[in-house]
Amino acid sequence: MKILLHKIIHLIVLLISHIGLVLFPYSVAERIKLFKRQIYTYWLAPNFRKFGKLSMIHYPVCLLGCKYISIGEKVGIGTRSVITAWDNYEGDTFSPEITIGNNVWIGDESHITVINSVKIGNNVLMGKKITITDNSHGNNTLEEVNTAPNKRQLYSKGPVIIEDNVWIGDKATILPGVHIGYGAVIAANTVVTKDVPTMAIVGGNPARLIKIIE
Amino acid sequence: MKILLHKIIHLIVLLISHIGLVLFPYSVAERIKLFKRQIYTYWLAPNFRKFGKLSMIHYPVCLLGCKYISIGEKVGIGTRSVITAWDNYEGDTFSPEITIGNNVWIGDESHITVINSVKIGNNVLMGKKITITDNSHGNNTLEEVNTAPNKRQLYSKGPVIIEDNVWIGDKATILPGVHIGYGAVIAANTVVTKDVPTMAIVGGNPARLIKIIE
Amino acid sequence: MKILLHKIIHLIVLLISHIGLVLFPYSVAERIKLFKRQIYTYWLAPNFRKFGKLSMIHYPVCLLGCKYISIGEKVGIGTRSVITAWDNYEGDTFSPEITIGNNVWIGDESHITVINSVKIGNNVLMGKKITITDNSHGNNTLEEVNTAPNKRQLYSKGPVIIEDNVWIGDKATILPGVHIGYGAVIAANTVVTKDVPTMAIVGGNPARLIKIIE
Repeated sequence: MKILLHKIIHLIVLLISHIGLVLFPYSVAERIKLFKRQIYTYWLAPNFRKFGKLSMIHYPVCLLGCKYISIGEKVGIGTRSVITAWDNYEGDTFSPEITIGNNVWIGDESHITVINSVKIGNNVLMGKKITITDNSHGNNTLEEVNTAPNKRQLYSKGPVIIEDNVWIGDKATILPGVHIGYGAVIAANTVVTKDVPTMAIVGGNPARLIKIIE
Repeated sequence: MKILLHKIIHLIVLLISHIGLVLFPYSVAERIKLFKRQIYTYWLAPNFRKFGKLSMIHYPVCLLGCKYISIGEKVGIGTRSVITAWDNYEGDTFSPEITIGNNVWIGDESHITVINSVKIGNNVLMGKKITITDNSHGNNTLEEVNTAPNKRQLYSKGPVIIEDNVWIGDKATILPGVHIGYGAVIAANTVVTKDVPTMAIVGGNPARLIKIIE
Repeated sequence: MKILLHKIIHLIVLLISHIGLVLFPYSVAERIKLFKRQIYTYWLAPNFRKFGKLSMIHYPVCLLGCKYISIGEKVGIGTRSVITAWDNYEGDTFSPEITIGNNVWIGDESHITVINSVKIGNNVLMGKKITITDNSHGNNTLEEVNTAPNKRQLYSKGPVIIEDNVWIGDKATILPGVHIGYGAVIAANTVVTKDVPTMAIVGGNPARLIKIIE
């Protein structure tokens, strides 16, 4: 009896693991994936400073410094995203802070790296493969050039602030010190090097103003 | 005897699952991956409107609305790609259509999202991390700016058409309403916002004409 | 006794496989991931021409032609990267060579494709989703336009050389024939089409000189 139970549990675990999905029709497999996602989220949630209701983390993500990350309600973090809050790097210590509001979606394979502060407001929608960083490896000085880039001191030009209702397209990059205003739209593949005004649409590399929504 | 058979099947499933690959030399593992890919493709194929001979889907992909997607022969869809045909979103209904010709390769981690129509011709070669979209979250009007971007109505400026023999580099983005002419080349990281003439080479963000092949 | 041993080994394999990770606290799971990475690296290492001490490959990567790839010491190759050295393609044969120095980090989901030569020096730090290629599908001539891009002869304009202490941001692309000088910085999303001088900072698509570090 005990052996049978063990077998059944064993089989369920195996079936839920990805290769097992092909034993089910596609629609059932989707539900199993959802179930797996819930278990994964439930498992990760206690590690965060705050983790709001109905938020969901899509398996698998790569996280560092969860205790510096606050996540609001109804947030989704896409699969294969990497969110890192560094409290030390090459002997320096930092006080990183990542704050994510309510109803935020961070697309798959996005990358957020923080030593200072990244604040994302409510209702921010991000596409896939977004990069957000508040820091760089060194400050581009002559003294550092003979140091390996991964051994240079991390330097933050300033915090990144993304206001409410911003929409960011696939593969955009938000650089240190940037403030993106309320309701702005950042086109796909845009590199945002400077502040973006409220309700502005920007695109290009580096970002240029396309128009203001009026 | 039955127990032994059960054990053997069990072991095979386990070995095929990724951790098990290290039990084999690399060359054998590659064949097992191919076998896994075939099982995966065989499992997904019946969900599509049409699925041509010798086409292959590389495990894992994320699909929505397979019944609106027609795939020709000898098509390859790269691993971790996301292809979504939305027939409803936030209360609106759509009639999406994705048509992919013969001998098309969609690179790994690409993203195709459709509410209207995306037509990809024959012999189209796409790099990795391509984005193709025929829609946007809202139409950038003042009325929408106070609505969360993920709650805005999806809007399609027009279908995307990619003619035969087009080659698209890694991380390029094709925006709504764009028609890419026969034999065109889209450089890596290009953002295509306007139509591309036949046999044109374009690059940049936004795309600029580099030359016409003559 | 034998059965028990078999069970225990079986269970360990299962637990190490990703679904099993949720049976442990997050911190323990991280160590298991590290262990898995070491096994994976140990398994792949003999396939390379050279594989230096303390180098690490993050599970899973996609490799082709390992015997043409030399990897120095303390190199890290990020998860889901694709590194391909083609010694034949569509009937043509090539002598590809990929040389990676010491203390190099290749970010997750990067893509390096070679038929000729890619040399990466020491202390090169690359972000995620980098593309480096020394070849293209055809040479953009009128004769080739009626050939499917994936059937065109691969053509290399020249080798790619990346000198020591270069730092490359997320999603940058390095095109064939490019030489990047010592200590240069390539901003995120940059497309490098021409040589980059020593200690230059470049950005944009195509890359433009931002400044020389002095």
